[in-house]
Amino acid sequence: MTAAEARDRLEEFRVLIDDVDRRIVDLLNERTGVVEDIGRVKREAQLPIYEPKREDQVFANVMESNRGPLSEEAVRRIFERIIDEMRTIQRVRMERGPDGEK
Amino acid sequence: MTAAEARDRLEEFRVLIDDVDRRIVDLLNERTGVVEDIGRVKREAQLPIYEPKREDQVFANVMESNRGPLSEEAVRRIFERIIDEMRTIQRVRMERGPDGEK
Repeated sequence: MTAAEARDRLEEFRVLIDDVDRRIVDLLNERTGVVEDIGRVKREAQLPIYEPKREDQVFANVMESNRGPLSEEAVRRIFERIIDEMRTIQRVRMERGPDGEK
Repeated sequence: MTAAEARDRLEEFRVLIDDVDRRIVDLLNERTGVVEDIGRVKREAQLPIYEPKREDQVFANVMESNRGPLSEEAVRRIFERIIDEMRTIQRVRMERGPDGEK
């Protein structure tokens, strides 16, 4: 493969990556929307935000659905980051009150 | 809303979250597959793995496609983790050689 051929193939792969990334961003936002709904229900019912048992279930679900090539550890680290961001959002919402005011 | 009603609603939301998460795992693996293809092409053409300019493009793409409610900073932090995992995969592949042997 010449360097020029390699560059062309890489360009094709990058178009695919950018498309996958946009779909990941959409799903992350969809997830955030549901997390916000959960926050509202918890606030209304005065339930605790942080439920370690539920977080275990979230990890069990993602691990179980992972068919690779990504390793279990990599999936876990990525979801730790995602869940951490979601926890921050719920906490901020909780502090701001029902209508999102500060 | 009674506590029982709240529990029911939370359960519905959790089914949605688990479904979104499985789709995120699928996309992460799809992305990993393309990253592995990129690694093979780079190795064959003896191009460098790490290209900071390309990483800037990846971030520009995800930021541009983010419509919220997730903040720009949260999206960036999540993709920093994703890209870091992908970089590790490419490096490991590079070291193992063309057929994945150690």
